[in-house]
Amino acid sequence: MSSTLTTTAIGYHLDRVGNGTDGLTLRETEFPQPGPREVLIRVRAVSLNRRDLMILDGTYPLPSAPGVVPVSDGAGEVVAVGGDVSRVRVGDRVAVTYFRRWIDGPVTAAVAGEQTGCNDEGMLAEYKLAGEESVVTIPSHLSFEEAATLPCAAVLAWSALTSPDRPMVAGDTVLTVGTGTVGLFGLQLAAMLGGRVIAITSGADKAARLTALGAAEVVDRADTPDWDKAVVELTSGRGVDHVVDAVGPATLEKSIRSAGFNGQIALLGAFPSGGAQLDPGIFNGRFVTVRKLVVGSRTSFESLNRALEQHGTRPVVDRVFPFEQAMDAYRYFRETGPFGKVVISLPA
Amino acid sequence: MSSTLTTTAIGYHLDRVGNGTDGLTLRETEFPQPGPREVLIRVRAVSLNRRDLMILDGTYPLPSAPGVVPVSDGAGEVVAVGGDVSRVRVGDRVAVTYFRRWIDGPVTAAVAGEQTGCNDEGMLAEYKLAGEESVVTIPSHLSFEEAATLPCAAVLAWSALTSPDRPMVAGDTVLTVGTGTVGLFGLQLAAMLGGRVIAITSGADKAARLTALGAAEVVDRADTPDWDKAVVELTSGRGVDHVVDAVGPATLEKSIRSAGFNGQIALLGAFPSGGAQLDPGIFNGRFVTVRKLVVGSRTSFESLNRALEQHGTRPVVDRVFPFEQAMDAYRYFRETGPFGKVVISLPA
Amino acid sequence: MSSTLTTTAIGYHLDRVGNGTDGLTLRETEFPQPGPREVLIRVRAVSLNRRDLMILDGTYPLPSAPGVVPVSDGAGEVVAVGGDVSRVRVGDRVAVTYFRRWIDGPVTAAVAGEQTGCNDEGMLAEYKLAGEESVVTIPSHLSFEEAATLPCAAVLAWSALTSPDRPMVAGDTVLTVGTGTVGLFGLQLAAMLGGRVIAITSGADKAARLTALGAAEVVDRADTPDWDKAVVELTSGRGVDHVVDAVGPATLEKSIRSAGFNGQIALLGAFPSGGAQLDPGIFNGRFVTVRKLVVGSRTSFESLNRALEQHGTRPVVDRVFPFEQAMDAYRYFRETGPFGKVVISLPA
Amino acid sequence: MSSTLTTTAIGYHLDRVGNGTDGLTLRETEFPQPGPREVLIRVRAVSLNRRDLMILDGTYPLPSAPGVVPVSDGAGEVVAVGGDVSRVRVGDRVAVTYFRRWIDGPVTAAVAGEQTGCNDEGMLAEYKLAGEESVVTIPSHLSFEEAATLPCAAVLAWSALTSPDRPMVAGDTVLTVGTGTVGLFGLQLAAMLGGRVIAITSGADKAARLTALGAAEVVDRADTPDWDKAVVELTSGRGVDHVVDAVGPATLEKSIRSAGFNGQIALLGAFPSGGAQLDPGIFNGRFVTVRKLVVGSRTSFESLNRALEQHGTRPVVDRVFPFEQAMDAYRYFRETGPFGKVVISLPA
Repeated sequence: MSSTLTTTAIGYHLDRVGNGTDGLTLRETEFPQPGPREVLIRVRAVSLNRRDLMILDGTYPLPSAPGVVPVSDGAGEVVAVGGDVSRVRVGDRVAVTYFRRWIDGPVTAAVAGEQTGCNDEGMLAEYKLAGEESVVTIPSHLSFEEAATLPCAAVLAWSALTSPDRPMVAGDTVLTVGTGTVGLFGLQLAAMLGGRVIAITSGADKAARLTALGAAEVVDRADTPDWDKAVVELTSGRGVDHVVDAVGPATLEKSIRSAGFNGQIALLGAFPSGGAQLDPGIFNGRFVTVRKLVVGSRTSFESLNRALEQHGTRPVVDRVFPFEQAMDAYRYFRETGPFGKVVISLPA
Repeated sequence: MSSTLTTTAIGYHLDRVGNGTDGLTLRETEFPQPGPREVLIRVRAVSLNRRDLMILDGTYPLPSAPGVVPVSDGAGEVVAVGGDVSRVRVGDRVAVTYFRRWIDGPVTAAVAGEQTGCNDEGMLAEYKLAGEESVVTIPSHLSFEEAATLPCAAVLAWSALTSPDRPMVAGDTVLTVGTGTVGLFGLQLAAMLGGRVIAITSGADKAARLTALGAAEVVDRADTPDWDKAVVELTSGRGVDHVVDAVGPATLEKSIRSAGFNGQIALLGAFPSGGAQLDPGIFNGRFVTVRKLVVGSRTSFESLNRALEQHGTRPVVDRVFPFEQAMDAYRYFRETGPFGKVVISLPA
Repeated sequence: MSSTLTTTAIGYHLDRVGNGTDGLTLRETEFPQPGPREVLIRVRAVSLNRRDLMILDGTYPLPSAPGVVPVSDGAGEVVAVGGDVSRVRVGDRVAVTYFRRWIDGPVTAAVAGEQTGCNDEGMLAEYKLAGEESVVTIPSHLSFEEAATLPCAAVLAWSALTSPDRPMVAGDTVLTVGTGTVGLFGLQLAAMLGGRVIAITSGADKAARLTALGAAEVVDRADTPDWDKAVVELTSGRGVDHVVDAVGPATLEKSIRSAGFNGQIALLGAFPSGGAQLDPGIFNGRFVTVRKLVVGSRTSFESLNRALEQHGTRPVVDRVFPFEQAMDAYRYFRETGPFGKVVISLPA
Repeated sequence: MSSTLTTTAIGYHLDRVGNGTDGLTLRETEFPQPGPREVLIRVRAVSLNRRDLMILDGTYPLPSAPGVVPVSDGAGEVVAVGGDVSRVRVGDRVAVTYFRRWIDGPVTAAVAGEQTGCNDEGMLAEYKLAGEESVVTIPSHLSFEEAATLPCAAVLAWSALTSPDRPMVAGDTVLTVGTGTVGLFGLQLAAMLGGRVIAITSGADKAARLTALGAAEVVDRADTPDWDKAVVELTSGRGVDHVVDAVGPATLEKSIRSAGFNGQIALLGAFPSGGAQLDPGIFNGRFVTVRKLVVGSRTSFESLNRALEQHGTRPVVDRVFPFEQAMDAYRYFRETGPFGKVVISLPA
C-alpha cells in the first residue's frame, strides 16, 4: 500500500459530493514536498465525525473543495519538515488542528472558514502536508488510534468546559446530554476535571458504561422523559452549573430547564433546522447562558493534551478499521450507533 | 406631607395584588428606626419599571410581600444610620440596590430571590430603611430625579456591556433592540464606552432622538422589517459584536441573525411565554452566546456610577410627577409610550 | 466545661497584646443571643495560622479589638438562628469566613478591614455569633477538626489556583514554595485540580511526605540552592505555569525565575519588610504576573468545599489539642515546625 | 530613491551591531517577491522605539539577525499579494505586527522569540515582505506617519489597559508613569476609555501637554518627590485602580504604593538590571497585581485600531524625518527627549 519510490502517495479523495462513500476515490497523487514552513506527516490513524458524513452528503454548511482528501481527525508521525519549521521535528507524533489558522482567542469568521478535510486537505491519506502552525504534539500515553480521536470532538468538549469566559471548576455539577463522541468526551473530561457528572442516556447497558467512564448519576430518558426535572431533583432543586448538550434542537429546552442560576449551556455540534421549536419565554426568570461553540483553537488542543497526559485519560474507541476498509468504517459509523470513536488505521 | 413629630411616615403600600394602582394605599406606618447595620433614607425620587406594573398586576414571577412598599428604583438622602454602619454617613446621597444581598460576582438563586419593592420594602414612601450593604452613593452630577432612574434599567444595561465574561471594548459594534428604558440605557452606555451603536426603532422622530443619544446608525423596523439583514450590511457582512436585546421573544431570532462570529447577545427584561418561537437550528453555523441577565450586583452599580460621573452622562427622564400623583405616574407609564424614565418626586 | 444553665459562655480573650499567650484569658461572658440575621455556632474545633501568632504579638498589620476572641479558623454546629436567617438551619455543620463581608468578586479595602479573630470576634470560644452572610457549610466527609483547617490557608491556596483572572487548568505545571499550611494546601489542591506539581522543600523526610500528598517532583533546596534552575530544567526549559509562593521575600526572586512565559506567581501570606531585596530588572524579558492575594471570598470557600467533597480530599492535621490546652497548641505551633495544621478541639 | 526597473529595492541593514547608527548600511537588495501566503508592502513611514536603539547597540535581550532591516514600527500600502492571501488586497493601508506569529491569546515563548526588525526583517526599507497573518489594516483617519507609531508602543499600552485578565472600565482611575511614547499612549488611551487619568511628569510645560492629552491631574515629580503619596491623596486615600508604569525599576515601588486594593500595575518596557531595588515586604498588606507585559497580539492591534477610529484619536508625533535622514532621526530620538513619536517618512 505504501507508495513505491515515493514519487506518489495514496489517499481517498472526495470526487463527487452527494453520493455518500461512492463519491470517494482511492487514488495516487504526486508525493507532497513541504514548503519552508510546512510539515509532512505520515498518517497513522484517522477517526470519523458526523461532519465527515455531512461533507460526503453535501449537507455540511461549508462547501468542500473538489477532490479534497476528507476527514479532519488524524494522527501520525512527522517525516519531513521545511527549512523554516521550528515547532516540530522529524519523528514527532502529531495531530493537525481542525482549523488551519485558529491559534488562540475567540473564533473569527476567518479561522472558521478553513477546515481540514473540507476545503483544506484532510487526513484520510498516507500523507498530510500541514502548515507548521496547525500541528500539535499528541499525548505520549496514547496510541495513534487513540490520539486520532481528539482534534474535533474532544477539543470541542474541552473548549466547552474550559472556556475562559466561565470555565468549570472542580466540584461543579455538569450535565451531559447525548452519548455520541462529543457527549462521551464531555463526560470523561468533566469527570477528569473534578466535576460531578450527571449523564442523560437511554438503556441500562449504556448507563453502565457511562458510570464506568465517570458519571456520578445517569438518567435514562426512556424511563424518565422529563429528565430535566430529574436533574433538578438530583441537584436538590438548584439545577446544574454546566450543560454539555451534544444533541441540539431536540434537547435544548430541557437543557435550559436543567440549569441553575448562572448555568452555562454549551450547545455543540451541527444540526439541521426545522425540528423542535424553543419558546424564548423559557428565559424568563432563568438567568443562564447558551453558547454555541465550534471545536476550538490550537491552544485548547494543546491544553487538552497536557491534561489527558497528566491524568492518563484515554478516549473511548469503538472499533478500528484498516485503511483499505475505510468505506466500511464510514458505513459502520453511519449505520450503527457506535459507543466511542470509529477509527481507521494505517500501517507505519 | 411630611410626618408630623416623626412618629409616623407615609408611603404607598400594595395591599391588593391584581387591581393595578387600585391595589395601592397611601397610608401611615410607624416611623422606622435603623438597626445597628441599617440606614434610614429620606426618599427624594423614584422611577418606574415594567416589573413594577407586573408586581401590581400579580404577573411578576416573584410574589410580592403583603402590604409591601412598591418600586425598586429610587434615590434620596441618608438621614440616620445605625451604630455599626461604616459605608455611608448622614447627608450622603444614595440609591438602594435592586437586590438586597447581591454584592459582587455572578447571580445566585439566593440573591435573586430578595427584591426591593417586591418581597422587600421598596422606595415609594417618604422613608426607606435599608441594610447598609445595599446602599450605593449616587453620581454627584445627577439630580435625585436622574439618579432615581438607575438601579434597575441602567444597572442591567451596564452589566450586559461590562460583564467580566466578555465585556465590550471601545470600537466594538453594538446593536440595541428596543427603546424602552433598558434599550435607551444600552444605547447611551455603549456609545459612552466607545462603541459604534446601531439602534433599531420605529419612526423618524424616535430615530432622531436615538441619534442625539449617540447612535451611529438607526434602522427603522417599520421601513425595514428584515432589520437583521440591514444590520449585517451595515457591518460589511460581519455582524455585530454585541446585541442588547431589551425586547425578547419577538426579536431574539433577528438579534441572533444580526450577530457576527463570537457575538454576545444579552437578553434583558421580563417577558411572557407563548409568543414567537425560536428554531434552535438557527445556532447551526452561528457561534454566538445568548445570555439572559438580571439587573446586576452592587459592584456593577458602583462601577456604573463612576463611569457616568467620569463622562458626565445623564439619563433620559420623560416626565416627573409629584408624590401625590404617583397613581398618575403609573398610568402614564403604562398607557403612553414614554421615551425615557417616568419619575415620581418627593419634597426634601 | 460547658456553660451551666447557658447564662454564660467560656472563651479565650486577647486582653493584653504583645505578651504572646500570656495575653490570653479564659473567661466567661454573657451567653450570646442571635439577632434577626445572626447564627449561633457551637464551636467544635479551631486551627491556628501564623497571623494568629502575629495578633498575639501585636505585629499584625491590623490592630485587634480589645478583649477579642482570637483565631479565624474554626468549625462547629449551628445551635440557634435569628428569625430572618435563610442560609443555614440549626444542626448544620459550618465554618465562618475569614472576612465578615467578602461575599464574591475582588478584594476591597472595606472587606479586608474586618477580620474574624482580629477586630471581629473569633472562634477560640465555646460559641461564636456570626452574621448569616459569613457562614459556610463544611464538606460532609470532613470531621470538625479537619474542616477547622480550611477558612484561611486552604481558601487562600484555592483562590490562588482558581482566580478568575487566570485559573490553573488541568495539565498545568505548578510550583509550590514553602511547606507551611498554605504551601501544603497549594500542593494538595493543585494536584487535585490535575496539575503537575513541583514542590520545593528541605530534607528527605518532608520530600517523601510531599510526594505522598501529590507532588510529581520535589526539589530539595538544601541540596539544590539554585532550585529555580532545577525547576526550569524539570520543565524542559519552559518554566512553570503557576507558582504558589507561600514564603515571600526570601523566595520571590527564585519564584519569578522559575516561571515561564505568562507565568502566574501568587504571593501568599504576611511577612515583614527588610529581608531580601528584589531587583526589578528581573522582569526584563520575563513576562509574568505577580499577584499578592489575601485569603478569599465566601464564594471561593464554598467552591473549595464542593471540590474537596467531590474529590474526597482531606487536609493534613499535624496534631490536635484539647480546648483546655489551647496555650500549648499555640506554643507547639510557634516552636516546632509542624507539618500540617495545629488544631484545638472542643467537646460537643 | 525608488528602485529602477524594480529589480532591486533599497533599505537600511544592520551590518554591524554595537556601533549605533554607524552599523547601519543603506544598500540595495534583490526586489522581494511574495510567496503564496505573503504580502509585499510599500513602506510609507516608520517610527522609532527605545528597543531599536538597543538593537543597534547590541544591548537588546534578543540577538538580531545579521544584516537585518531594523525597526518594528511602520505603515504602508500593499502592492502585491501571493496567490493564497485572503486577509488583505493590493491597495490596502497596513502595518505589520511586532511579533510575526502572535495572533491572539497570552504570550508564549515561541511567539515572543520572533520580532520584526530584530531577528525578522524590519520596516526601515522601501519594501517589506510579510506573512499575511502578520498584517493589520490601519485606521482610516490616520496618515501613514501617524499609523506608523502604533505597532509597538500603542499596542503595548492598549494591551495593558484591555487585558482580558482585568481590563480597565470607564470610571476607573489610571495612573501613568513616564512620558515616553508608551506612557503617552497609556494616558491617551486610558482617557479615551473613560478613565480618570493621573499622570506623573516633570516640568510645567509637559504638564500642560499631558492635560491637553486628557490627564485629569498631573503630579510633578520634581516638586513632589513623594508622588505616590500625592496620588493616594488625589484618590481620597483609596489608591488608583490601574498603573501604567512605563519607566520600570526606578518607579516600581512608588507605583505599587500608589495602587489601591486589587490595583493592577502594568510594567512596560525593557530596562536593565542593577538599578533601584524593591523590598518584597512592600506587598505586605498590599493586595495588588504586577504584570510585566510585552507589546501584544494581532487581535489587540486590530482592537486598538477600531477604538482609535471610533474615537478619532490621533497619536502624538514629535517630528518627521525623510528616509534619507534616517540616521538623524535615530540620533534625534536618542539625544533629545522627544514628546511623542519620532517618525521617518518614505515617498509613495
